[in-house]
Amino acid sequence: MNSSPHPPEFPLPSGFQFAAVKAGIKPSGKPDFALAVADRPVAAAAMFTGNRVVAAPLVVGRQHLQQSKGRVKAVLVNAGNANCATGQPGIDTCREVCAAAAATFGCDPAEVFPSSTGIIGVLLPGEKLVAALPQAHAALGRTDAHFDQFAQAILTTDTRRKVSGRHFTAPNGKQLRILGCCKGAGMIYPQLAPHATMLAYLFTDAAIDPADLRALLRPAVDASFNRISIDGDTSTNDTVLLLASGASGVAIDAANIEFQQALAEVCLDLAKQIVVDGEGATHLVELQIDGAPTDADALQVAQTIAHSPLVKTAWAGNDPNWGRILAAIGRSGVAIDPARIAIHFGEHEIARDGGLAPSFNEQAAHDYLARPEFLVRVDLGIGPGTCRFWTCDLTKEYVAINADYST
Amino acid sequence: MNSSPHPPEFPLPSGFQFAAVKAGIKPSGKPDFALAVADRPVAAAAMFTGNRVVAAPLVVGRQHLQQSKGRVKAVLVNAGNANCATGQPGIDTCREVCAAAAATFGCDPAEVFPSSTGIIGVLLPGEKLVAALPQAHAALGRTDAHFDQFAQAILTTDTRRKVSGRHFTAPNGKQLRILGCCKGAGMIYPQLAPHATMLAYLFTDAAIDPADLRALLRPAVDASFNRISIDGDTSTNDTVLLLASGASGVAIDAANIEFQQALAEVCLDLAKQIVVDGEGATHLVELQIDGAPTDADALQVAQTIAHSPLVKTAWAGNDPNWGRILAAIGRSGVAIDPARIAIHFGEHEIARDGGLAPSFNEQAAHDYLARPEFLVRVDLGIGPGTCRFWTCDLTKEYVAINADYST
Repeated sequence: MNSSPHPPEFPLPSGFQFAAVKAGIKPSGKPDFALAVADRPVAAAAMFTGNRVVAAPLVVGRQHLQQSKGRVKAVLVNAGNANCATGQPGIDTCREVCAAAAATFGCDPAEVFPSSTGIIGVLLPGEKLVAALPQAHAALGRTDAHFDQFAQAILTTDTRRKVSGRHFTAPNGKQLRILGCCKGAGMIYPQLAPHATMLAYLFTDAAIDPADLRALLRPAVDASFNRISIDGDTSTNDTVLLLASGASGVAIDAANIEFQQALAEVCLDLAKQIVVDGEGATHLVELQIDGAPTDADALQVAQTIAHSPLVKTAWAGNDPNWGRILAAIGRSGVAIDPARIAIHFGEHEIARDGGLAPSFNEQAAHDYLARPEFLVRVDLGIGPGTCRFWTCDLTKEYVAINADYST
Repeated sequence: MNSSPHPPEFPLPSGFQFAAVKAGIKPSGKPDFALAVADRPVAAAAMFTGNRVVAAPLVVGRQHLQQSKGRVKAVLVNAGNANCATGQPGIDTCREVCAAAAATFGCDPAEVFPSSTGIIGVLLPGEKLVAALPQAHAALGRTDAHFDQFAQAILTTDTRRKVSGRHFTAPNGKQLRILGCCKGAGMIYPQLAPHATMLAYLFTDAAIDPADLRALLRPAVDASFNRISIDGDTSTNDTVLLLASGASGVAIDAANIEFQQALAEVCLDLAKQIVVDGEGATHLVELQIDGAPTDADALQVAQTIAHSPLVKTAWAGNDPNWGRILAAIGRSGVAIDPARIAIHFGEHEIARDGGLAPSFNEQAAHDYLARPEFLVRVDLGIGPGTCRFWTCDLTKEYVAINADYST
């Protein structure tokens, strides 16, 4: 495997064009309508939010994938309005926009995949998207700049674009490319199920049939987007979409380890970029939980730590207050034994046997936690269960961003 | 029933003395060692935290209640140190303090009930408490001022004393009194179980045997302290203790409705005072969930709303962002139907059938949410399940308080 990150040194996967235009949805007036159009309908796999309140474009997008048997020609993403809690009018609007796009791009409406992100409960002005389609069509292109426009237009409270890519050489000597982008900074606790307002779009020029694509996507998502949380609030609009154009001429199946690994790396890179850009976040925190009864228990402990306001605010202050971590472990619901718990911050031993470690050095721990990225390792000392999870701190800036959003 | 609130117009339950002194635990130098001493060992019932990490005084207190068959002579509360995650040395220290108190007050060590609140993971300087016992003994008294000193000394990050009382006249014409106080402002999500760093102490002069006292305490706690959350972090030290001196000469059993109701009122009043004084809180929010499949489902929805950082920060901004409430309901795990959900803020209809209510008036909703106390009503439209829950908003001040606690 010969993997290297995008951008800027890696070309786009073949078979796709990208554009972004201003449709007038974002109050800021910035580009808010992003399109990815494949040269022909291509294999697609998607995962959607586990929230029981599901936005209109997810309802429509899931139907379209079923009707098209996993084929997508055009991806439409608007930012600034989630088209969620908008009832049947929201679904009707979504379908109207897809139908107009199908006419524009010469495909079946079921081959159009819609996404929306933004405020909940406000009817999407679909006519603005329809009116912007001709301009978007004219703006399509295959350059890095076009892809970057796509990656920029899908953002809401994000402060930066989130892009990741890998490429590797197939046994037949041909090169395969995977490139992805995503958005998300708040309401981030994706619980994506095969049927996730984090949005992620992944493109490859490998030739993969839809069933294999779905089989490849799930483990990559489970180990990345499903292992992050900013605020614990699972969105109504989370979506991950993977398109495979086949334009490389290299066929890949679900058992291809190089592809699995490259896809996993792109997904994890994108997921961590979301956490780094978490609303108000000043630290990217990696949680490594070991010694749990099961992997599921390890995940439950990680989630409880990641969602503890007291732990997250301590991190904001670079505060080695390990008692709050211990209390979170204790309320996680996992059958832990407090006397067996060990906690490390990076290489700094903090707690041993459920109490303060003899070597605990408060100043050293504080200095370590002042880093922009740090590792919290918890060993429950019981069983083989383990997991990795990524989260961030809770700052005054988070409150400022979210105490005045819709008004 | 003829119930009226304490203070200042209501006398203390007979049979108890109170004091508070400075033992040197709180860095501020304020009184930090509170004592309640009954005239003789009296009936006691307690509930402790559901956290699997349990502080030393809870381990010792539970053992003492078992050994004494539910009898308590002296209650010792220190603030400033939780004596949690302190291992066997923490338990040994707690026992030494209890033994010294037993000698001071002329009772069995098992008749001493210890409590601690404050930082986790730091060994309790028990010798300071032992040294302060003679002074505390000398300071005991039966006046409102003595009780208020007790209620003040148990506080940590609280900004005010929390006291509530009720009295009513028994059929035989004698008057019964219930008086309670509590502390807590952060790490507040009590999940008290019969074997609950919220601390609450309840005193009555009714004559009640320990089994009946336990039967009376549980439903009162379940409907009050177990229905509040500030930050969702269940403490390692939560304790509710109810003592019945019998000094009124009026016998009460578990079926006494007047006593049940008065106790429930005192507990709910105290619980709400905790939320009002929540760290950084500017709003007391009552959640009324109706139409859930079951009461347990209603509680799960209430807890998910109460723990959503996005909902809590919207409240901090008086922001009628009902989409965040809807998203929280959707991720609660309860089998809801989004199209049946109705939301009211007080009398203001916000959402109907899962979408914006036609009568929604953003300015009116915003003005309502500017009140210090407001009501959020959610009707899931499915079944008979219902619950009431009390919580607060999440403000920059919460972050400021908790980003610099132990350092």
